[in-house]
Amino acid sequence: MLISSVSNPKIKEILALKDKKGRHLMRAFIAEGAKLIADIPNGTDVSQYILREDFNLDTFRFQPEAEILTVSKSVFDKISDVETPQGIAAVVKIAERSSDHSRNALILDRIRDPGNLGTLLRSAAAFDFFNVLLINCADTYSQKTVRASMGGIFKLNITETTDDAEIQKFIPSDIYRFIGLDIGGEEISGFSRCGDTLKTALIVGSEADGMSDYLSEKCSIELSIGMSNGIESLNAAAAGSIAMFYLRSLMSGGRLS
Amino acid sequence: MLISSVSNPKIKEILALKDKKGRHLMRAFIAEGAKLIADIPNGTDVSQYILREDFNLDTFRFQPEAEILTVSKSVFDKISDVETPQGIAAVVKIAERSSDHSRNALILDRIRDPGNLGTLLRSAAAFDFFNVLLINCADTYSQKTVRASMGGIFKLNITETTDDAEIQKFIPSDIYRFIGLDIGGEEISGFSRCGDTLKTALIVGSEADGMSDYLSEKCSIELSIGMSNGIESLNAAAAGSIAMFYLRSLMSGGRLS
Repeated sequence: MLISSVSNPKIKEILALKDKKGRHLMRAFIAEGAKLIADIPNGTDVSQYILREDFNLDTFRFQPEAEILTVSKSVFDKISDVETPQGIAAVVKIAERSSDHSRNALILDRIRDPGNLGTLLRSAAAFDFFNVLLINCADTYSQKTVRASMGGIFKLNITETTDDAEIQKFIPSDIYRFIGLDIGGEEISGFSRCGDTLKTALIVGSEADGMSDYLSEKCSIELSIGMSNGIESLNAAAAGSIAMFYLRSLMSGGRLS
Repeated sequence: MLISSVSNPKIKEILALKDKKGRHLMRAFIAEGAKLIADIPNGTDVSQYILREDFNLDTFRFQPEAEILTVSKSVFDKISDVETPQGIAAVVKIAERSSDHSRNALILDRIRDPGNLGTLLRSAAAFDFFNVLLINCADTYSQKTVRASMGGIFKLNITETTDDAEIQKFIPSDIYRFIGLDIGGEEISGFSRCGDTLKTALIVGSEADGMSDYLSEKCSIELSIGMSNGIESLNAAAAGSIAMFYLRSLMSGGRLS
């Protein structure tokens, strides 16, 4: 049955996910676009697929228990967040994963641009910084962040908190070495292994202000990326991606030992 | 004298720079924001500064030959490209620099997102890939690209062309080794020096399609950035920044020799 009105109760529920409040309440978000949806890993809790009536289904595999809604162009356009929608979206439940303290961590402090946040999540998945702690960042599950993460968001253990006890539980300081990116730090290209068995928690601070004092105090190592031509900083997503790439290249068995 | 109407001829000329056509015709662009304008290097050809009437001038040094226009809030809002303008903008002439074949080069192929293009220009300046060739990219001098470049745009030799003879003149193949970023390439972390005296021209292709065949044929080396968790690609600006960082770390005296 084709749904052609936004007052349909199912569509109303989906449209509520365009706001942070609705996402928080329903613990779900909208993923949009053929590539992104094809990349949803098996076992992800997809509750609905939304297809525009002209969308060509041939090449698609759907999660078996999800509901499939077919909607008119005007309804799809309301759900979509892009200028030229491809005609496929999904409602995905926010995963409650548990920390895996055998894997590295990324801490993002006040990354407010959704494009940068998504790019950092994409790089975190690519370089296996599995446990991601977000402190006062842009909303993780906005359509723009999800899109920029290009599926990275499905493959990470992401938590948002500013509570000290929760941070300690998520990234215990007896298991992790905190490494901060900071303009005054040691040149990263000269940094090498550490000779212990700690895991790495990389901290990337806000573009405008760097790391907070709270995080800076947790760091045992501060690294900087040397720059020429009087350039004072890199884009935060570029800097964080470089640091993850570089630290990973030093690791053996996931450790800087 | 306070300018409070957009029909003022000087304002009309400035507003024409919001479009690519106007920028091309007048060989000038708009730079906006206090930090960006403070970063304009001495000797840059600034024709005008535009100040909102409430902008606090105290900390500013202006290029001596530029005209200073003071405008009303409503006029400034028309010129501005951001949601909460700081109240300062400048009209900057597009620099006609010449190639410096003693420095490395970056070739960007169909980078269509202005944020990614600006981020790559920022990283190119930071890692001293001075000669930048743009092939069918987003417009270099749009306000969004200029902003994302964070002053990088003032410090590079940028040219746009698809003409083979011009490309050869800009980045001669007897002086440069072309290194492409490609998913099928050799793992970059394992790549080391080359033992010759060629300069480096790094090619970053479009996120959707990679490098064009034309550029691919020019490459003597193709490198890839290894990824985990089934992630198939990085954001183009993140990937290009990683590659520039890594290649620079291998160089001595600017050469991979």
